[in-house]
Parts: sequence; structure tokens; C-alpha cells
Amino acid sequence: MEDYEELLGTLLEKLSPSSSNAAKITNAAATTTTASNDQTIPVGISNRHIHLSQDALDKLFGTGYQLTKLKDLSQPGQFASKECVMICGPKGMINKVRILGPVRPQTQVEILQGDSFKLGVKGVLRLSGDLSGTPGITVIGPNGSLEIPEGVIVAKRHIHMLPEEAARFGVTNGKSVAIKFDGPRGGTLTDVIIRAKANSGLEVHIDTEEANALGVTPGTKIKIIKSEN
Amino acid sequence: MEDYEELLGTLLEKLSPSSSNAAKITNAAATTTTASNDQTIPVGISNRHIHLSQDALDKLFGTGYQLTKLKDLSQPGQFASKECVMICGPKGMINKVRILGPVRPQTQVEILQGDSFKLGVKGVLRLSGDLSGTPGITVIGPNGSLEIPEGVIVAKRHIHMLPEEAARFGVTNGKSVAIKFDGPRGGTLTDVIIRAKANSGLEVHIDTEEANALGVTPGTKIKIIKSEN
Repeated sequence: MEDYEELLGTLLEKLSPSSSNAAKITNAAATTTTASNDQTIPVGISNRHIHLSQDALDKLFGTGYQLTKLKDLSQPGQFASKECVMICGPKGMINKVRILGPVRPQTQVEILQGDSFKLGVKGVLRLSGDLSGTPGITVIGPNGSLEIPEGVIVAKRHIHMLPEEAARFGVTNGKSVAIKFDGPRGGTLTDVIIRAKANSGLEVHIDTEEANALGVTPGTKIKIIKSEN
Repeated sequence: MEDYEELLGTLLEKLSPSSSNAAKITNAAATTTTASNDQTIPVGISNRHIHLSQDALDKLFGTGYQLTKLKDLSQPGQFASKECVMICGPKGMINKVRILGPVRPQTQVEILQGDSFKLGVKGVLRLSGDLSGTPGITVIGPNGSLEIPEGVIVAKRHIHMLPEEAARFGVTNGKSVAIKFDGPRGGTLTDVIIRAKANSGLEVHIDTEEANALGVTPGTKIKIIKSEN
């Protein structure tokens, strides 16, 4: 009887996923699956922020000023700087608006829809860089202020990915897709634009109002659930 | 030939929806359809606000104080008052929080999820009135301040309707449904709770973050698109 028990114990030990060999095999299989078939995309949540041109940075912080990196962002080379500015519209101001670096050819202010009422500046839904005909605003830094004639947008939600990731997800650059969020404040957001190009970090970008409305917290991962066009 | 043309003209005139009789008939049919089969529901957008008990109103504004109506709200008897208060958490304060009347048995503060970070008070998702175990906050009025031990919620989205309207929509009180928004920032919000009772005004209630995330403006109407449970 004791022999049987010992034999059974040995067999169970060999067969159990908690035995060291079985665990190794199981983990290896899981890793392989993740690398080739993972259809989830991490979500990045953006608060209001500003991108400055070097000319704007010179005016606001002093000639030849260089931004100080606070932390790297998910997109390669992009960073949050230690520096902030104030933005002022005809109805109000918002302080401590974070500057994201590096400098860009054109100054761009990304506000929340809710900010548009506070500032008295229309909230125009645009993809980053598509600034023609957007409202202007006054930006105030420690060295001076600057009135930009255009460049204020509410960022259109989008997904950064590499072209090979786009192929894996079955989407193409510029395509509009929907993404689904679970949880007690769940739902689906449509009109999410694919931005597929080299040197991208895979991430969905939504703003804090979108995140709060859907109960999204940092670390959330979503799936593309359907194609729209 | 001219007779044929005249006859054709008369026939077309009689058959066209733009002729006065045809228009009358068409409009009458449309009106009947609206009254009996309209499946759309207007959307009401709530900013942060507070409901006070009479005791709280006495403490904040003076003994026996009565709220002054600013405007009626969609729910019968409910109104926005002229009076506002300040709310203060451990990390910050928010001024000009509107009081909604009439007074209620228990003080309830409805904040936005984004406010929870500003105040340093946890944003707990609850239906109005379900306050057990929710965070407290300090409320400041012109006559004094008050620390409530609980009562701060982020309002769970819901739809007010009459029981007979619930029957028409094929839903029941307490049921969770989804609602769909169109437009360039469209999508679907799930976890919308039916609140069916007498003396209700038909309206979906979402907060400003939810409205901004979905591009919803006053006057928007939605449809219930599916049942969840």
C-alpha cells in the first residue's frame, strides 16, 4: 500500500504543472503564444498638454532654451518635460500645462473638451499635426507670452503601431476602428484612427475625459473589435 | 397633347407629398407614429453638483434657510438653485458647486471622476441614494462648514422613465442597458441603469466627462440598443 502511494505521488509530481519540468514546458508554450498572437493593445491616457516649436520655447523660456526631460513616453524619443506653461483664452486660464518634447515644427495645444468651456476656446476634434483652421490661444511662460493664431485641438483618439503590427491586426494606416472596454463603466469607442508608421510604440491614445467616462485606468489593455470603413 | 399634360400635372400635384392635402396626411401619420412608437430618449448632461439635507443647509447657509430656484430640471419638482458651495478634500478644493433642490434626507455630492484626483477623494461609482460606505468630504458655505462622513459618489449613468415607458421600451426598473451615440466621437456606453418610477421625466443622465468623451451636446437623443441582463 505504501509503495502504491509512493508511486502515485511520483506520477502526480511528474504530471503536475507545478513540477519544475512541466512548468518550464507550460511557460515556454505561453511565451510563444503571446509573441505571435497577442491581440491586446495597452492604453495610454493623455491629460491636456502642449508641444512647442523652438521659436515658441525661445519666446516663453528664453533664447536657446532646452527642455528638461522628466520621463520618457511610450512613443520612442518623446518625453514629458519638467517645464509647464499657462494657457489663456477669452474666458479663463489653465495653469501647469505640461510641455511634451522634443520641440516640433509647429506649436500644438491639446486640450480636453471640458477645457474648451473654461477657456472660451472651441474644442475642435483633430489628429495631431492637422492644425489648419483650428483656434488660437495665448501661452504664458516664465520669460514672456505668445499668441498662437492656430494650433488648439481636442485630440482624436488613435492607435500608434508599427506597419507590421498593423498587418497583424488586419488594419491599415488611417483606418477607423472601434475599441471595447470592460468593467462597470464599460462600452465601445468608435472613430479610433490607426496611425501605423516605423518607430512607433504600440499604444491606444485616449484623453482623461475618455478614460474617466469608460472607467479606464493605467495598465488597461483593449482589443480592436471591428472595422468601420 | 396639352390635355394630357394638364391631366398629368393634376395627377402629379395630387400624388406629391408637397401638395397641401398629401402633406397634411403625411404629417398626421408621422405625428401618430411619434406618439406611440418613438424609441428615442433625450440626453441630460450633469456637471458636478450637490444635494443637501435641511440640517446641512442650516449649517452652511443659516438656520431655516430656503434655496432659491434658478431653473427647473427635467425631473418633476427638481431644480437648480442659485446657491453654490465649495467642496474640499485632502488634496484640493472645487469652488462653485451648484446645489440642486429640493433638500433631501441625506447630503450627496456628485463629482466627476476627474475631480477625485483634484480633491484627493476616491471616485466611487454609485446610483444616487446608494451612499453606504462612500467617501466623505468637507463642504463650505457662507455661514459655516460641514464634514460629511459619507455621500461622495461618481453617478452611475441611468435613464429616468415612467413605468409605462419602461414597458414600451421593453425594460424593467434596475435593468442595465446600452445606449449608442453617433457622430465623430461616437460609441456605445454599457451599464446604463433603468430607473422606472411614477412622476419621472424621460431622460438619460450622463455626466460631463461621459458627454465630452462621446461628443454629446445638449439636445442629443439616443436609443436603447440592447439589453445586458
